[in-house]
Amino acid sequence: MAKKLIGIDLGGTTVKFGILTLDGEVQQKWAIDTNSHDDGVHIVPDIVKSINHRLDLYGLTKDDFVGIGMGSPGTVDIEKGTVIGAYNLNWTTLQEVKKLIEEGTGIPFAIDNDANVAALGERWKGAGENDPNVVFMTLGTGVGGGIVMEGLLLHGNAGAAGEIGHVTIDPNGFDCTCGKKGCLETVASATGVVRVARQLAEEYVGTSPLAAAMNDGVAITSKDIFVAAEKEEDKFALMVVDKVCMYLGLACGNIGNTLNPSSIVIGGGVSAAGEFLRSRVANYFLEYTFPTVQQTTAIKLAVLGNDAGIIGAASLATKFINQKA
Amino acid sequence: MAKKLIGIDLGGTTVKFGILTLDGEVQQKWAIDTNSHDDGVHIVPDIVKSINHRLDLYGLTKDDFVGIGMGSPGTVDIEKGTVIGAYNLNWTTLQEVKKLIEEGTGIPFAIDNDANVAALGERWKGAGENDPNVVFMTLGTGVGGGIVMEGLLLHGNAGAAGEIGHVTIDPNGFDCTCGKKGCLETVASATGVVRVARQLAEEYVGTSPLAAAMNDGVAITSKDIFVAAEKEEDKFALMVVDKVCMYLGLACGNIGNTLNPSSIVIGGGVSAAGEFLRSRVANYFLEYTFPTVQQTTAIKLAVLGNDAGIIGAASLATKFINQKA
Repeated sequence: MAKKLIGIDLGGTTVKFGILTLDGEVQQKWAIDTNSHDDGVHIVPDIVKSINHRLDLYGLTKDDFVGIGMGSPGTVDIEKGTVIGAYNLNWTTLQEVKKLIEEGTGIPFAIDNDANVAALGERWKGAGENDPNVVFMTLGTGVGGGIVMEGLLLHGNAGAAGEIGHVTIDPNGFDCTCGKKGCLETVASATGVVRVARQLAEEYVGTSPLAAAMNDGVAITSKDIFVAAEKEEDKFALMVVDKVCMYLGLACGNIGNTLNPSSIVIGGGVSAAGEFLRSRVANYFLEYTFPTVQQTTAIKLAVLGNDAGIIGAASLATKFINQKA
Repeated sequence: MAKKLIGIDLGGTTVKFGILTLDGEVQQKWAIDTNSHDDGVHIVPDIVKSINHRLDLYGLTKDDFVGIGMGSPGTVDIEKGTVIGAYNLNWTTLQEVKKLIEEGTGIPFAIDNDANVAALGERWKGAGENDPNVVFMTLGTGVGGGIVMEGLLLHGNAGAAGEIGHVTIDPNGFDCTCGKKGCLETVASATGVVRVARQLAEEYVGTSPLAAAMNDGVAITSKDIFVAAEKEEDKFALMVVDKVCMYLGLACGNIGNTLNPSSIVIGGGVSAAGEFLRSRVANYFLEYTFPTVQQTTAIKLAVLGNDAGIIGAASLATKFINQKA
């Protein structure tokens, strides 16, 4: 029987698992709750138990697998296979993830940062079309990213390559949690979009049910803003979307001018706004890039959704193919 | 005898040559004039003749060499070894550089863009200290660059990776020759620095010999501005230098936030301003980067000067080492 890969997407609420072919086709998927009690000491043993249980269920053994890959929050040491500072898992001290999973399953294990792993997934089987040069940007609670160039995931000197959320899009912009001003994350994360709306509402003079609701103290979300802009053509909402897309176009433009990837793939919750968002970002991207990049770097929407994590994680394990052969 | 490399730095006025050890030590250097007459048809034959002449002179043969590498202006096809659109060489049509040089010398040949090659040189034997992640930025007539990540030179989808001069540092900035606004090149090339001075002179109210000279119509250079700022503490010149360094710090900051290289190395004519420039760019860099990048990405000055080209070019030829072994 052909060998397989296991991909794990470790998140703060669930751990998602997938069994994949070496070509990246997902054959089985399951998930367990993340038990982050007791400083997260149960998480890795739960993962080992769940893998071994599923292999029994499917009549598979460790020899059916080339390797296991995992995407994790926090600061990941990809060489040592450890994680530290993953606060949504209550992992404040160093976790020997690789050691415990390899001991518990007998299968070789590789790990990387969750945003990097999602980038690998979209590059391999998603919008990136397996091109050697793909940048992935995720717009969610925060803004993260991952960069694949010349077929390699970039890590940089201290693992911070791909931290696109902290690109400065306005030197005089909003304060960011990272300590500096004007980060992309302050205007393009889900809360960032609302922050831009709140700023523009102060000076908005015109008729807008959305602006009126905001000024009445109604709590609005990023989704409310995109819906009001697209479905109701609320002028204030359109203004907010335009400004957010201008910032995204500027950030993508400079990624394009610096790296000239074949595509910059936008994913995460905010990207649920779909083509309405993408087309506007792409228009500003053209304004902020020089001709070669305009013609050879495309702005695309992510296509894998939640599966990007397990697919990208599984791709980490393909490096064991030759080692096991 | 140990095998050697040849590095060629092809420029609009001279062609520089070097014979180097496999470790990148320059053993011989020479140069010839670039004869760009007759649509530049003499350039490649002149290079072949010069190499063969020098090998005779030194009692060397083609078997003493692993390969030849060259950095060229224009649009370089690194696979095919061709160049087109190098206007300072009068090369408007496709030039079969690799074919002619390999036929003429019998030595394997590799070629890349001149800014990329300078980046490889500074990374290998210069300020980059042979780290896998180094970005090089050259401030001269224009602003160019090259990016080495995970040990690989990045090219991007259409060879435009590393075109740092066209990063947008001000969406409402000066018009650039590339067709867009606010490119780094419009404020940080030699002419860009003067452009910033001219803009600031319009609104400057204060005593400054430099501003007075400018307003009297005296032609000033980027060098004049840096000298007036550093040696004469001319307040207007200091203001210009500060603004240029702010733009450079912002551009370097976003390169740092995106790629987290171990260093961003600044070279080219404008960088002759040395530590006076570097320290100011580094201060703004800290303002525009998040903590991990502040701590693990350094702003450095290039150290190889004119030799970066031949050293980086020679490094292209190291890929032939195993092929010849």
